[in-house]
Amino acid sequence: MSKPIHVLDILQQKRDGLALSGEQMESFIRGVTQRDLPGAPTDAQIAAFLMAVFLRGLTPQELASLTNAMRFSGETFDASPLRTFAVDKHSTGGVGDKTSLLLAPILAAAGLAECTPEGVPGLCVPMISGRSLGHTGGTLDKLETIPGFNTQLSLAEFTATLRRCGAALIGQTPTLVPADRILYAMRDHIGTIESPNLITASIMSKKLAESLNGLVLDVKTGSGAFMRTDQEARHLAELMVQTGTLAGTRTVAVLTTMHQPLGRFAGNWVEVWECVDLMQHHEHPLSADLLHLTHTLAGWMLHLAGKAEDAQAGYLRSQQILRSGAAYQAWLRIVAAQGGDTSVFTTPASFHRPAASRVIAADAAGYLASMDCTQVGWAVQRLGAGRARPGDPVSAHAGIECHAKLGQVVQRGQPLFTLFSEDARLLDEPADMLRQTLQITEAAPDLPPLIREVVQYASPAAAPLDR
Amino acid sequence: MSKPIHVLDILQQKRDGLALSGEQMESFIRGVTQRDLPGAPTDAQIAAFLMAVFLRGLTPQELASLTNAMRFSGETFDASPLRTFAVDKHSTGGVGDKTSLLLAPILAAAGLAECTPEGVPGLCVPMISGRSLGHTGGTLDKLETIPGFNTQLSLAEFTATLRRCGAALIGQTPTLVPADRILYAMRDHIGTIESPNLITASIMSKKLAESLNGLVLDVKTGSGAFMRTDQEARHLAELMVQTGTLAGTRTVAVLTTMHQPLGRFAGNWVEVWECVDLMQHHEHPLSADLLHLTHTLAGWMLHLAGKAEDAQAGYLRSQQILRSGAAYQAWLRIVAAQGGDTSVFTTPASFHRPAASRVIAADAAGYLASMDCTQVGWAVQRLGAGRARPGDPVSAHAGIECHAKLGQVVQRGQPLFTLFSEDARLLDEPADMLRQTLQITEAAPDLPPLIREVVQYASPAAAPLDR
Repeated sequence: MSKPIHVLDILQQKRDGLALSGEQMESFIRGVTQRDLPGAPTDAQIAAFLMAVFLRGLTPQELASLTNAMRFSGETFDASPLRTFAVDKHSTGGVGDKTSLLLAPILAAAGLAECTPEGVPGLCVPMISGRSLGHTGGTLDKLETIPGFNTQLSLAEFTATLRRCGAALIGQTPTLVPADRILYAMRDHIGTIESPNLITASIMSKKLAESLNGLVLDVKTGSGAFMRTDQEARHLAELMVQTGTLAGTRTVAVLTTMHQPLGRFAGNWVEVWECVDLMQHHEHPLSADLLHLTHTLAGWMLHLAGKAEDAQAGYLRSQQILRSGAAYQAWLRIVAAQGGDTSVFTTPASFHRPAASRVIAADAAGYLASMDCTQVGWAVQRLGAGRARPGDPVSAHAGIECHAKLGQVVQRGQPLFTLFSEDARLLDEPADMLRQTLQITEAAPDLPPLIREVVQYASPAAAPLDR
Repeated sequence: MSKPIHVLDILQQKRDGLALSGEQMESFIRGVTQRDLPGAPTDAQIAAFLMAVFLRGLTPQELASLTNAMRFSGETFDASPLRTFAVDKHSTGGVGDKTSLLLAPILAAAGLAECTPEGVPGLCVPMISGRSLGHTGGTLDKLETIPGFNTQLSLAEFTATLRRCGAALIGQTPTLVPADRILYAMRDHIGTIESPNLITASIMSKKLAESLNGLVLDVKTGSGAFMRTDQEARHLAELMVQTGTLAGTRTVAVLTTMHQPLGRFAGNWVEVWECVDLMQHHEHPLSADLLHLTHTLAGWMLHLAGKAEDAQAGYLRSQQILRSGAAYQAWLRIVAAQGGDTSVFTTPASFHRPAASRVIAADAAGYLASMDCTQVGWAVQRLGAGRARPGDPVSAHAGIECHAKLGQVVQRGQPLFTLFSEDARLLDEPADMLRQTLQITEAAPDLPPLIREVVQYASPAAAPLDR
């Protein structure tokens, strides 16, 4: 007979730095989700738990238990009936980061190229994405600028689309990982958002609820990232890779630089436009960073799915899929399957209809040396493209276009950014924000590489993870 | 213009180990007490605050601010109109600890002996006491066994009694330190009782709300104390002395041993009986430890009040006051002033009317070597004398009588304890508990002294306090 589990014991153990058992973690999270269960924790007890975890940390086993309990706190998506390899990507969030819109069709094309005799793609990408919040964009808001595109598929429709197209892109459903919504709201309320352990449990519980076989994490660092230092980003990457691996999912993290908007555009429709343009024409000088990151992540995804010998071979395969037009064909198939009107892709520039725009020009000649990329993200939000609070509406056609990238030589008066908004009155503040944050220098800046490091699982015995 | 104060900033600062300002602490506690104030913390935020304080600790200044904010969270008792020195004692709680019942009349007698021309006692003892909880007894429950004794005086009646008698003994009023009741209930709910900082703020806010000029703390250590080790007890004593001193109250702590019931009886009426017997007859072999502790504490109280050159002189003065009969006269005056029927003191033994009793005899010859004094306290509680939960009723005549003290040689079959209860069915379990915990050995035990150490204020510069 097992010992009865009490919330007060859990709080006191965690408070004293003693590890919780899997049963304790599971019982606590069950109570978080089903608040009317006898002995379920109160709001105050959940708050005390989160603060204790914030300050005491978690052992790898505790983090695995917490993530697992959250993962199974509601419905899960099970791709196993498809009998194929399910792989996904998650990014910690950035400005102009539209890799999902390219990765889904590239990987889908790779899967469709290797269908089984029963017609099942050789791999699939069950993407469950989020919305814009604060200075970062969200895949769902971008997709919803495509007329008719439905991001609210049922799990049955999701499965059917995956089977037919090799990829599908939907939003969180209320029944997936309900514990995360409750815990996240509480963390926000009591100031415990910035915990590597709690961030890991939140992200990984949602990703693992997709029952993935492979997962590539894009952990961003730099002025536009949530993690400001390499060290913090690496620690988070290690925790997430460890947690994914312990849960049986092949997991890799790529540490990447987020110090300027990724690619040419940041906003909603403008980002779809940039991706469609790349799928149609395969390159653009201002999208070089976006393509490099996309192929790097796709390379790892293909490698994890057993479709490339290593990440480098996967990179080349991804390039080839984009250049062959197969990615664009897969994209059209996915969008059509999700109800989207693909006619807008014929001349995507003509679908871009902001009410007002303004050009920010260089106020000196020299190197475009630096910017506070979080500030740039907030400027995009203020233009109407993002939301300050969950539930706020977003504008389809607001955003910015980058005419130069960091490290580039610019002339005085040369356009650096164009701002777009659906309301001319919204241009002034973001224009000032951009002017204030852009630095032009005489000397060439020393810029970090876009791809910094790859974090794979090291067993704790070989290399103990810093907790 | 001062910066606006936000609960979320307070939580994040404390979480990150940054000290809170006095304004922040005051604003937070104001919100704890007045929950409808805009920006007041929610239950969850109070819980997160307490857990963060538990794990991060407090600087001496933060502890002083917290205590001060709690102290002024409701009404306070102000003895200053009496124009005399107000001194009190607080004990961290024990078994059979009835020193308050002796200290109040001894100190009152000292005050009455030195009245001003206006008839005000030379010092006064405004005692605001608590009730039994768990394994420890409570002064109010003991006093209320005296027929008619009223522990619920208004603050005006309290002042009048102090002026007339030099001492008065009442319970917490709902309007005194309301923040402590809220915070204590929350600490109990989330498992953060055992924090030296939070214990200090709780005790000292209530004591300082009596506007004391002097305070002597009896910090107990040993098997019957909340603090089990000398180190924990000393740390708590240092925090309390520091906090009292920073608030302008002369404060001293005495570390004392609680490894067996103090004196001859533990219970409610039986403890009053023991004290009345000592005030009438001045000594009893089984009350020697009680008298030694009482005179030690009284000695410090008299010294702090300027009525004795040092604690040792105060000790002798206290002995003399007891032996002269002056303490008994003061006792009768206080009890009568608070509505108590003093006729029960004429033959106190005859007022002791338990329905059933049982003797526990030694099961071997040897030295009475040890007991788990917390277990003994719980046995007293189970007999009916204490309460497991706040609000439970207590029995006036339940309790135990000790026939031998630790270190004493006993013969097989010699009575060690007599148990009393108002319900014969309640005798079995406590009798078993006592039998199990009593150890008789062949070798003489090595017993710690009753009075271990005196902690006075050392300025942080001279000797930094361990946080």
